[in-house]
Amino acid sequence: MMRKLDQKLQISYQFSVFFGRDVFDPRQPLLADLLSRTGPKAHRVLYVIDSGVVASHPGLTGKIEGYRTAHSRTMELCDPPLIVPGGEGCKSDFTAVDAIHERIRSHRLCRQSFVAAIGGGAVLDVAGYAAATAHRGLRLIRMPTTVLAQNDAGIGVKNGLNGMGRKNFIGTFAPPFAVINDSIFLSSLPPRHLRAGMAEAVKVALIKDKSFFNYLYTNRHQLAAFEPEEVEESIHRCAALHMDHIGTAGDPFEFGSARPLDFGHWSAHRLEEMTAGSVLHGEAVAIGIALDTLYSMHKGMLSEYERGQIFRLLTDLGLPLYHPGLAEMDLTQALNRFQEHLGGDLAVTMLNGIGRKVEVARIDLPLLESCVRQLALLDPDYANLPISDRLTGMRQFQEELG
Amino acid sequence: MMRKLDQKLQISYQFSVFFGRDVFDPRQPLLADLLSRTGPKAHRVLYVIDSGVVASHPGLTGKIEGYRTAHSRTMELCDPPLIVPGGEGCKSDFTAVDAIHERIRSHRLCRQSFVAAIGGGAVLDVAGYAAATAHRGLRLIRMPTTVLAQNDAGIGVKNGLNGMGRKNFIGTFAPPFAVINDSIFLSSLPPRHLRAGMAEAVKVALIKDKSFFNYLYTNRHQLAAFEPEEVEESIHRCAALHMDHIGTAGDPFEFGSARPLDFGHWSAHRLEEMTAGSVLHGEAVAIGIALDTLYSMHKGMLSEYERGQIFRLLTDLGLPLYHPGLAEMDLTQALNRFQEHLGGDLAVTMLNGIGRKVEVARIDLPLLESCVRQLALLDPDYANLPISDRLTGMRQFQEELG
Repeated sequence: MMRKLDQKLQISYQFSVFFGRDVFDPRQPLLADLLSRTGPKAHRVLYVIDSGVVASHPGLTGKIEGYRTAHSRTMELCDPPLIVPGGEGCKSDFTAVDAIHERIRSHRLCRQSFVAAIGGGAVLDVAGYAAATAHRGLRLIRMPTTVLAQNDAGIGVKNGLNGMGRKNFIGTFAPPFAVINDSIFLSSLPPRHLRAGMAEAVKVALIKDKSFFNYLYTNRHQLAAFEPEEVEESIHRCAALHMDHIGTAGDPFEFGSARPLDFGHWSAHRLEEMTAGSVLHGEAVAIGIALDTLYSMHKGMLSEYERGQIFRLLTDLGLPLYHPGLAEMDLTQALNRFQEHLGGDLAVTMLNGIGRKVEVARIDLPLLESCVRQLALLDPDYANLPISDRLTGMRQFQEELG
Repeated sequence: MMRKLDQKLQISYQFSVFFGRDVFDPRQPLLADLLSRTGPKAHRVLYVIDSGVVASHPGLTGKIEGYRTAHSRTMELCDPPLIVPGGEGCKSDFTAVDAIHERIRSHRLCRQSFVAAIGGGAVLDVAGYAAATAHRGLRLIRMPTTVLAQNDAGIGVKNGLNGMGRKNFIGTFAPPFAVINDSIFLSSLPPRHLRAGMAEAVKVALIKDKSFFNYLYTNRHQLAAFEPEEVEESIHRCAALHMDHIGTAGDPFEFGSARPLDFGHWSAHRLEEMTAGSVLHGEAVAIGIALDTLYSMHKGMLSEYERGQIFRLLTDLGLPLYHPGLAEMDLTQALNRFQEHLGGDLAVTMLNGIGRKVEVARIDLPLLESCVRQLALLDPDYANLPISDRLTGMRQFQEELG
């Protein structure tokens, strides 16, 4: 005598990613227009800002204040902005999340108030998680300030905290209200961070778009010199590919197993955990790409010429192909953890040519181990060398390899 | 020179609420069928059980073990089940959430593993939050064990923790994988909890369904005597009304302001906070219903006769109409906090006849205060009287009022 009631729900999300320059110039209507889209009143906005951004843009908080003065009928600030230490460390405990929650309570913010997060991927993750879990979700405006955050982390639908020693163990799916990619923030980025962010562009080109790979390859010297036009174009194309995948692959909240956007990421995540953040996410991804590229080649899915192009692109962008942590890594465990995080069966993305991905359910472990050894030969001393020597060294090895 | 990329996402959720008896009887295929719906393998299930349920059903864990033995090709247990202290207290810090996360890590559960939560609304909330935030969401099977959880809290799409001194300050929207309402758990409930759960049935009848109100009113003495047939029927109808609202009102994740299902809840939430859980949620809701019913009557939207029916139903079910905390409550603050939690403009649900709700944007505060004083007259000593005296006293007052 079993009875049953069925529930069906359809939830619709819609948001835009804007690409501009200097959005806090009071003459720029974008931000005010975004807020007033939800009604004609002074909308309360809590700014959460990456300490690194504040350090390199000391005038930022004054500029936000000026914007408020010019748009006071639309924007009400929760003074002062909350400064959160930038970098992966802020994701490793609940200090920043608790601080944001406390501000949300003390400023009496509601589900229709805004959290505007300005920073790198880690700060966006923390602010995103805090905004998504207070009152079951405030409106989040992301203003990514790094290449990586503007072309990948900041434009997606997830947030994450590290927990139990695992990267992104904790998190939710929570699409933002809007994303604003302001190129003014890129100009102050340290070269190492600019470079690291390009790894995601290489990644998404490799799995989805050969013509974008060719663009990156052709313009690699301009990108390595941080020419604004090429950097901005690569960010725009990379973001578009990421968004297209999330929006059209049919599983934005990842109820299934495959996660093709995570090409090169299974080892990258583990390398980040092992090195406690001293390797940047983008650097770890570059190394992960190198490993899975080599594996794909040895499996006959990628030519030696294509492998060479990929390694040359990474190297010329100043990205590493190896880190000693890779040799110490328990590869089986790293693959298992990746599977756990994804859920379900193992589905590792490999390359079947440039711009063509393939999902692999079994990994040839001896071959994978041999790939790690080959990469180590490419750059045995990566961790100990100054960056300029590393680049020279890698280029030499690259040439030897062909 | 602003560029823009648009993202549109549609997320579909589908789940069923099953009503049965003794689902851990190995001959009952329901649970095994549910698991194997996601593929033919032994699915890992972490059981999280309310300490109160374990106390009144000492054979439960053995029974689950027996079910596993009979269905070992489908269900793999993470032994032993995690026992969480029942009641509102478990929502007030992260102890239980952390313990569940630790189990998820140590048993290597993934996004396609299951958390099965057996308990009252508080334990379902805690397990739901933990399941929703680990790996960005495991599959949650709710097995509500109280009337309140079976007819309301357990069948919705939310979870919540108390934080910063506010009820449900923290939480997410996270539809369950499935809900199983097993009537076997109701038989062991303390009378006070059985009664308290009926308040949500009265509530949803008042705002949505006059014929259900008439059913409750006609059968109030059978319900007060906990006759299984009437209790189960009232749970089924109440759950159906709640689910219908969530599924068809067009805003299951509450992006807008109105929250009509929260009739009587603005004062109830505050009363629960003020009394630190010594007043049960259902009792607080009954008091909140009494207050807003009286207010609706004085506003001319409800007849004296209807008010009398509502008060008689609550009273005959053994539910309170008043608590001294109501007189101490800062009503403006309570309304403001409710508004904050909902987001946006104030939208308080009032009655415009039995079965007909109306959203009110302004509250007549002097009238509301006078309503509180009138309720106090109804039952000045509610907190100090034993339950039998309370019932007698309330019936007398009820008769005096007509």
